[in-house]
Amino acid sequence: MLQQLFTPSVQHTLDLIGIFVFAISGALLAVRKNFDVFGIAVLAEVTALGGGLFRDLIIGAVPPAAFTDLGYFLTPLLAALLVFFLHPHVERIQTGVNVFDAAGLGLFCVSGTTKAYEYGLGLTASAALGLATAVGGGVLRDVLANEVPSLLRWDRDLYAVPAMVGATMVVLCIRFDALTTVTSGIAVVTAFVLRLLAMRFHWRAPRAWNRRSTVREEEPAKATA
Amino acid sequence: MLQQLFTPSVQHTLDLIGIFVFAISGALLAVRKNFDVFGIAVLAEVTALGGGLFRDLIIGAVPPAAFTDLGYFLTPLLAALLVFFLHPHVERIQTGVNVFDAAGLGLFCVSGTTKAYEYGLGLTASAALGLATAVGGGVLRDVLANEVPSLLRWDRDLYAVPAMVGATMVVLCIRFDALTTVTSGIAVVTAFVLRLLAMRFHWRAPRAWNRRSTVREEEPAKATA
Amino acid sequence: MLQQLFTPSVQHTLDLIGIFVFAISGALLAVRKNFDVFGIAVLAEVTALGGGLFRDLIIGAVPPAAFTDLGYFLTPLLAALLVFFLHPHVERIQTGVNVFDAAGLGLFCVSGTTKAYEYGLGLTASAALGLATAVGGGVLRDVLANEVPSLLRWDRDLYAVPAMVGATMVVLCIRFDALTTVTSGIAVVTAFVLRLLAMRFHWRAPRAWNRRSTVREEEPAKATA
Repeated sequence: MLQQLFTPSVQHTLDLIGIFVFAISGALLAVRKNFDVFGIAVLAEVTALGGGLFRDLIIGAVPPAAFTDLGYFLTPLLAALLVFFLHPHVERIQTGVNVFDAAGLGLFCVSGTTKAYEYGLGLTASAALGLATAVGGGVLRDVLANEVPSLLRWDRDLYAVPAMVGATMVVLCIRFDALTTVTSGIAVVTAFVLRLLAMRFHWRAPRAWNRRSTVREEEPAKATA
Repeated sequence: MLQQLFTPSVQHTLDLIGIFVFAISGALLAVRKNFDVFGIAVLAEVTALGGGLFRDLIIGAVPPAAFTDLGYFLTPLLAALLVFFLHPHVERIQTGVNVFDAAGLGLFCVSGTTKAYEYGLGLTASAALGLATAVGGGVLRDVLANEVPSLLRWDRDLYAVPAMVGATMVVLCIRFDALTTVTSGIAVVTAFVLRLLAMRFHWRAPRAWNRRSTVREEEPAKATA
Repeated sequence: MLQQLFTPSVQHTLDLIGIFVFAISGALLAVRKNFDVFGIAVLAEVTALGGGLFRDLIIGAVPPAAFTDLGYFLTPLLAALLVFFLHPHVERIQTGVNVFDAAGLGLFCVSGTTKAYEYGLGLTASAALGLATAVGGGVLRDVLANEVPSLLRWDRDLYAVPAMVGATMVVLCIRFDALTTVTSGIAVVTAFVLRLLAMRFHWRAPRAWNRRSTVREEEPAKATA
């Protein structure tokens, strides 16, 4: 068993911030898709809690934290309410939302990896599950909204790589017995800054080698929808 | 631990009725989507059992009831067969199906909430999970059929609210130590009647405040598909 | 508890082969959908491990094998890399891929059924879960790619039936106390050959009886997409 990564109250506050900003992104997509107020609330909950729920089911931590901590459940509702009443303003501050979302990505990849390791998974599996924790909510959000998950699309800025780097730093720290509040804080910040840079400079991942040669191109309308 | 909400055989019969009517709705969507007989069976199973399966995974009741009770598994197949051979007639009685579906909604939100509480969840979490039990199968049905879940769409009559009301009544009864067969029966009937009224008078939930001002409208063809 | 179906190392090798060929099919779909390299890796992992993950969550085998066996996790990445660099060649050998995929279907329906029974499920439930193990990854693949699962579509050659037959043979063998390496090998081969025949002769399942009479037809463009 690891030492607690952060003091419980700090960890909890950071979790709530991550949940809140992810919920904002879910609620905004719901508004764009023309969902009603319940659709906004559902998409906020799913986006914010989906990744952690998946992680907890995998490691056998049932009932998952999302259902035992009232704050985890109520925070997305607050985000949904804010978006419901203020969404033109929320959209105007889209940059701010993206920055918070990047912070959530950094926090969740680190806390997800740590929790998976605490529950006995190996290092590689812990990093994979940390990545899944960080990106899972967004994938569920897009599936429910009937869109291709933006995680998978080549025309979006890098999202998985920063989380992978953060998760990898955590398992390396564990491997070399150097996981402390400081080093995991560095992992959070690294993932966060990488994501910010990816958005700023539109870093993208390559598509399959030479793919135009034999494969039918998706029509542009769909590829950029 | 609560007392058993209903006598086991009554509870079981009510569950099977709820499963059956949910399965009918899944099978009918499969017919409309032009699926083959196996697609019809799969969509019937998923719609009928998906919500309870999700609940059982969350509370750690594994293997879930859907895999331990043969009746739960076979009932959707019966519904699929009926729809396969008789679907023009089943469609003609769409109103009847909607009434049964409303009954299933009422039953599942109450039984889901109660089961979640029996497994140790808090009151708010139990109500949330009861709601998820009631609506989860329909969401999975729509995701598999590659449609936007009708739960989320503003142009459908209220569906989540009746289940929320039913689940809330159950947790209030638990809170004030008044959960009996009678009070939970009242919760079932309330959710059922609210859903009927929502269909009759086309009650709908609002979309985001003032949303036309800055957000791109989905094209009508899609919004009403 | 059953005797081990195969010797552990043989079982493990067969599992890895099944995982590899399923991962190839996921990676190829990702290329066709124009996903980037991470999308290719994610779809390879999900296709290869999704069915087994679902089975393990249902039977309570947590953490699932996909997260405890490093080979299970790395094999899909290898498949993704191969497709990333070589996909024109991989596509040219599409027939070969289909044959391997059929082999994976046969292996997974048998091993899924056996594992479910070992964890205490009934015969019917074990067969159903074996079927879900075999087809689950492909369904998740199609959902993430925002397509109607090819499992459900009438215009695809039979896929579920061979797996059903294999799973049914296993539970009949268990029922009559005749499950040995030989009989389960026969079940694998039967499912495998049935799937090959279904592809060769384009066997398809019927759609709902007389369905044109009252139901709106999906436009052909969508039905054959």
